[in-house]
Amino acid sequence: MLKFREDKIKEDVNHVLAHRTEVEEVVDAICKEGYDNLFLIGIGGTYAAAMELESYMKGHSSISVYLENAADLLVLGNSKLSGKSLVLVTSVTGNTIEVVKAVDYVHEKGARVIGFIDEVESPLAKAVDYEICAKGSDYFEMLLVALRLMKNAGEFPEYEEFFRQMEEHLGDGIVEVERAADLKAEAYAKAHCDDAMQYVVGAGNLWGAAYSYAMCYMEEMLWMTTKSISAADFFHGTLEIIERDSNVMIFMGEDEARTQTDRVYNFVQKICGNVTVFDTKDYPIEGIEERFRGILSPIIMAAIYDRINVQLEEARKHPMDIRRYYRRLSY
Amino acid sequence: MLKFREDKIKEDVNHVLAHRTEVEEVVDAICKEGYDNLFLIGIGGTYAAAMELESYMKGHSSISVYLENAADLLVLGNSKLSGKSLVLVTSVTGNTIEVVKAVDYVHEKGARVIGFIDEVESPLAKAVDYEICAKGSDYFEMLLVALRLMKNAGEFPEYEEFFRQMEEHLGDGIVEVERAADLKAEAYAKAHCDDAMQYVVGAGNLWGAAYSYAMCYMEEMLWMTTKSISAADFFHGTLEIIERDSNVMIFMGEDEARTQTDRVYNFVQKICGNVTVFDTKDYPIEGIEERFRGILSPIIMAAIYDRINVQLEEARKHPMDIRRYYRRLSY
Repeated sequence: MLKFREDKIKEDVNHVLAHRTEVEEVVDAICKEGYDNLFLIGIGGTYAAAMELESYMKGHSSISVYLENAADLLVLGNSKLSGKSLVLVTSVTGNTIEVVKAVDYVHEKGARVIGFIDEVESPLAKAVDYEICAKGSDYFEMLLVALRLMKNAGEFPEYEEFFRQMEEHLGDGIVEVERAADLKAEAYAKAHCDDAMQYVVGAGNLWGAAYSYAMCYMEEMLWMTTKSISAADFFHGTLEIIERDSNVMIFMGEDEARTQTDRVYNFVQKICGNVTVFDTKDYPIEGIEERFRGILSPIIMAAIYDRINVQLEEARKHPMDIRRYYRRLSY
Repeated sequence: MLKFREDKIKEDVNHVLAHRTEVEEVVDAICKEGYDNLFLIGIGGTYAAAMELESYMKGHSSISVYLENAADLLVLGNSKLSGKSLVLVTSVTGNTIEVVKAVDYVHEKGARVIGFIDEVESPLAKAVDYEICAKGSDYFEMLLVALRLMKNAGEFPEYEEFFRQMEEHLGDGIVEVERAADLKAEAYAKAHCDDAMQYVVGAGNLWGAAYSYAMCYMEEMLWMTTKSISAADFFHGTLEIIERDSNVMIFMGEDEARTQTDRVYNFVQKICGNVTVFDTKDYPIEGIEERFRGILSPIIMAAIYDRINVQLEEARKHPMDIRRYYRRLSY
């Protein structure tokens, strides 16, 4: 299998899980001090990961959650941000300028910041109040904090069982998802690598995944033309320009919003002969119960699109590391 | 001027304003009863209008505001929705299925609903607790409620002065905006009506406008291929596929997020020779003070794109009333 780094995939999962005790200590201390609300702040891909988590939390938790794009927060503000707010940020490089400024901004308000920053010597790692160097999926990192906050609020009684299953099975499971998704990803890439347009549809906690896949991977790293659209709004505009040969890709997950992507799929087949569904349900993970698959859908979908990336990179002969403008020009 | 219905434009503005006393009575009664938070619920274009209002309120008001897409709320829920919530919906037809269901859903929770529904005999008009038939801009209708809530919370002391200026000058002002925007709209339409892709960028309370313009007008009514992107996230993916000839349209307004669209404009000129800025600032309205132009930017931009619509309709020879699927097929 092309560029299949089995050990790295498993390590990424387990590296996050290995930081659970550290996260618990930080979160428990904050819960003891008290906090009014949780701000999830990101930009680009980290904003999309925050969208995924917010989608889960707003229906499952009584904790007040605010999703903020770092650059927007800096200019628009948010009256709910205060010295009693808990802020969560993630960053690989630790020097994303808008997030660095946002952390300064929330500090001025007196809020505490937990950061999952991979580069421990970076400005962000130094700026946050609690730095956790977990080096894995942004969504999964933030989920650790969210589930502990929820457990402490009496809302996620399955906490210990959830993590027992993750620690025993998720690493191997994600490796198997990637292995199982590869053929379909290859077929997709070969058929669609040169398409003039890629529509990417998602719902619930995979709307962030669709938004991010189109923007951070297809546009930024693969130089492909995309439009991402939520399943909800697909029916309120975007449907009108879909024709027989339009390339429509649906990210289907297992949270409560699955009915919405089902609705898009059932309709779009009537007008389009070029629909591809990537469905987390096609990729079971042994040892992990069905009731946890909704929460895990962003992690499973990320494993699926990891293979789409590898295959598109090959089919397009476009190394994904190339950037022409991003972090190369000043803006 | 093509399809320029001066009287209708002015009437649309003043029809909303004529409902101010009715809105005040409803809102004052609700404030007297008390409410915990405000839910702005929409889908497609009405969701986008709610995005515009939420963008303004979150930094300017202490009222807890929740923005919800009707279809998502139905499946994902929101723990903050309760019998003490005030819900705001808008609809022209009054039969948008997802919003009808959402009103039933919020009623089950005991929340009160104010609806600006144009068709008074429609299911939605009958379902909402307070029906106001104002027949104008969704954003402007909702703004009436928001500003009254804010005034009652001691947050918008310029309330009377704001409405005095609107009542005296906004109707004529919007007519003049349309008149002044027409030539530029025509030039845009002639140059870009057949472009393979339209990028539409917005920020702050015009991010909803950009999202909506791309989806509800260009895609749904003009059958054009689009991608809308917020100025914030433009720099985190989309920039990489912009080339010299890419068609980039920037919606620039006068709220606090103007700096963000400035940033896109300043950068994108370096890599693209095909950028068009539609800027509310180019369209002053006599008698309305500068301090109110941020709040009004969505209304001014809607007047500008009303002319873009007329001109694109002509240039594309595509009557905007045609739908092939929307409300014609079942889904």
